[in-house]
Amino acid sequence: MATSELTSIRSQKVKAAKRLAKRAFRDRDRAFLAEGPQAVREALRLPGVTVELFATADAGSRHPAIMADAAAAGVPVHLASGEVMAELAQTVTPQGVLAVCRLLHVPLIEAVREDARLVAVLAHVRDPGNAGTVLRTADAAGADAVVFTDASVDPYNGKCVRASAGSLFHLPVATGEPFARTVALLRERGLRVLAADGAGERTLDDVDLSGPTAWVFGNEAWGLPEEILAEADEVVRVPIYGGAESLNLATAAAVCLYASARAQREK
Amino acid sequence: MATSELTSIRSQKVKAAKRLAKRAFRDRDRAFLAEGPQAVREALRLPGVTVELFATADAGSRHPAIMADAAAAGVPVHLASGEVMAELAQTVTPQGVLAVCRLLHVPLIEAVREDARLVAVLAHVRDPGNAGTVLRTADAAGADAVVFTDASVDPYNGKCVRASAGSLFHLPVATGEPFARTVALLRERGLRVLAADGAGERTLDDVDLSGPTAWVFGNEAWGLPEEILAEADEVVRVPIYGGAESLNLATAAAVCLYASARAQREK
Repeated sequence: MATSELTSIRSQKVKAAKRLAKRAFRDRDRAFLAEGPQAVREALRLPGVTVELFATADAGSRHPAIMADAAAAGVPVHLASGEVMAELAQTVTPQGVLAVCRLLHVPLIEAVREDARLVAVLAHVRDPGNAGTVLRTADAAGADAVVFTDASVDPYNGKCVRASAGSLFHLPVATGEPFARTVALLRERGLRVLAADGAGERTLDDVDLSGPTAWVFGNEAWGLPEEILAEADEVVRVPIYGGAESLNLATAAAVCLYASARAQREK
Repeated sequence: MATSELTSIRSQKVKAAKRLAKRAFRDRDRAFLAEGPQAVREALRLPGVTVELFATADAGSRHPAIMADAAAAGVPVHLASGEVMAELAQTVTPQGVLAVCRLLHVPLIEAVREDARLVAVLAHVRDPGNAGTVLRTADAAGADAVVFTDASVDPYNGKCVRASAGSLFHLPVATGEPFARTVALLRERGLRVLAADGAGERTLDDVDLSGPTAWVFGNEAWGLPEEILAEADEVVRVPIYGGAESLNLATAAAVCLYASARAQREK
């Protein structure tokens, strides 16, 4: 460890990191917090992303590989007291390591490449836990990019980062784009834009998913707004075979993304 | 409304309902709480399930159909003050209606009928939100039954009931069975027992899912224990095409259950 232990929650370093829990400061400082060994490990794998690391002495000795990676990358490590870690962490039981990372924003035009075949668009997702789960699922299904439109939650929200389980660091994530511009670019790239919504006439099983596809996911409570349904190439619903009224957002997204992944591979 | 307004959180009626938030009392009284208009509506649809209803005056006038259904079914309705509702409800923003319901337990042998084709088994699911989401997804995918083994969370836990979004009332749910007995009965009924786990050699795409199938889902953090993997007819994993280490439990269950639903219908 490079420094002596931070023990005061009033220290400038701690205050500067702590305020990144708020979106206004994340936007201003172009930085966010990644909490826990899994997220920190993934952050350190990407050159230039990790600005600094906070670790308790205990966590430092539990995760020697993380400490070694940080040292090799020239990332400053601040030894933090339990109290300081509790102040910085957003979880009830902090895992003892926490990184300040630069925002990973990729411009939409770079995130969605010419050869993209599977893209997830979060159009009106407000719950950060849901958003992070969809990001993780898109990564698992082999998506080429994820787009958070300007009506969705901030992907750098702590809950979203944690729910993504490292996936935020795995694939290009574009953010803050208006939906209309997103759709225009997706079409230009040759992707078919499918809105996932219970209002769809055809179900997932009736649609040919073998071509390049962008899935648009909406809000858990009220689905997708009319203008987005109208803008999409097609509105598709997950078939409901039993008595349930609907699926929750993250499980519906999983079914759609995996249906695409399979159809593209069967082709 | 049949009664005068309950305003004291110390009244016997309120105390008797409130204690159902704890499993020991649910087991003793053979009753649980269903919160919110959706759950209450579904409960009232099943004859003999709803024991009594608590409603604020405000919620009563917002949901006249629920009040009418309760009256038609002879279910006593207790008018509750906002304070009493806040005491009974387990949500931060109570929706003003709450039912005391009899446990819906169906013995395993009745829950899994001779002609069952799709069953979900929650073998070591400890998080009630996850468990409720899997129950909702199983219902949506047209499962014939859901089994909570004795190592899983109580399906009548308030969080599980809410996450199930009414599905707890839609299909037979067996609970508290040892895993070995569950597997024995599933086999007797002609179902193939597939354990969903990252340790599986074959993926979902490589397995014939057209026949009667029971899916076994484990714990989010550590998957399924060895003895369950050994007991299953096959261990199957959801393919991971991207950088994610795994899917979360509820999304993995959604992908598996919908793969079965589709394969059984394509047959």
